[in-house]
Amino acid sequence: MEQIEVSTGGRQAFHDITNEVQAAISRSGVQDGVCFLFCLHTTAGLTVNENWDPTVQQDIGTGLDAISPQRPEYRHSEGNSPAHLKCSLIGPSQFVPVAGGKLVLGTWQGVYLAEFDGPRRRKVVVKVVEG
Amino acid sequence: MEQIEVSTGGRQAFHDITNEVQAAISRSGVQDGVCFLFCLHTTAGLTVNENWDPTVQQDIGTGLDAISPQRPEYRHSEGNSPAHLKCSLIGPSQFVPVAGGKLVLGTWQGVYLAEFDGPRRRKVVVKVVEG
Amino acid sequence: MEQIEVSTGGRQAFHDITNEVQAAISRSGVQDGVCFLFCLHTTAGLTVNENWDPTVQQDIGTGLDAISPQRPEYRHSEGNSPAHLKCSLIGPSQFVPVAGGKLVLGTWQGVYLAEFDGPRRRKVVVKVVEG
Repeated sequence: MEQIEVSTGGRQAFHDITNEVQAAISRSGVQDGVCFLFCLHTTAGLTVNENWDPTVQQDIGTGLDAISPQRPEYRHSEGNSPAHLKCSLIGPSQFVPVAGGKLVLGTWQGVYLAEFDGPRRRKVVVKVVEG
Repeated sequence: MEQIEVSTGGRQAFHDITNEVQAAISRSGVQDGVCFLFCLHTTAGLTVNENWDPTVQQDIGTGLDAISPQRPEYRHSEGNSPAHLKCSLIGPSQFVPVAGGKLVLGTWQGVYLAEFDGPRRRKVVVKVVEG
Repeated sequence: MEQIEVSTGGRQAFHDITNEVQAAISRSGVQDGVCFLFCLHTTAGLTVNENWDPTVQQDIGTGLDAISPQRPEYRHSEGNSPAHLKCSLIGPSQFVPVAGGKLVLGTWQGVYLAEFDGPRRRKVVVKVVEG
């Protein structure tokens, strides 16, 4: 088990961590199995989406802001309930199959840490299981 | 493999099941691996979010009601399509890494059963895999 | 590790792949463990929801269209940002416990490939891990 640390770049930001995850798999020595990623926070999550055109990540952020705006009914005094909801919608974790020591991803897929209440320093647990 | 049963407390409710999950891990004897949780229902799910201030769970519920209201176009005759959609948005499952026989969670993270069409009796499968 | 291929039936469509997944588990010979499913695309995902009344899937699609419409602020030139957002909301993957060589699903649960930008030919990786 390892941890990846990411210093996020804004209130909301998507950071491609695919290379860091691949490096952790290589260090683990596992050839075939599953890589489990778990984000240790409640206002940031993990997603898999397009790694080519950065406007896709921007548009996903724009769409999430429209879905989860600040709402007058919210009671949590820290004021970051929109980020907590985004975290539960996107989810705190992702897994990716591993074959031949490599992540099995589609041509356009990358693994992203999704920051919803930054900038902050975030930790992602990486656990590679053989099987 | 075990099952956790939860009697939910309302139409929509979030139940912290972290202690029950930890107890199942302890019974499994697994020291290092991954704990897989799977909810056997289509109008309830599982999420990981803040375990300190209960207004966070309330606000997530308020936000989900705003995102997934009853809609006049819905055709499912049971009338609980908003709950089915919430289930697919939040997801039926979660996994959490295990190290030293303990769930690896961030300081503010808890595991929640999310009821969207209660009150009902709900079942969650717990499977702990060594690795 | 296997791949399931699905030719999707429209712009947005839900395809029940439960039988194909069960067949892959049977071929794997694994009796007890977890089945991991990973969709290799960024505008299609996987979900678990009701397998009985098809209006549930239709209503989930209607609700997702309301949540993730085309938005004038979107910048991605392919015009399919609503599908990319749906993919991150529903997620690219699902896991299901396996016991006695069978998927452990609730009475009303089926596994669905969710197409958001079809029709296309889609691939889902199936990986069954013993444990």
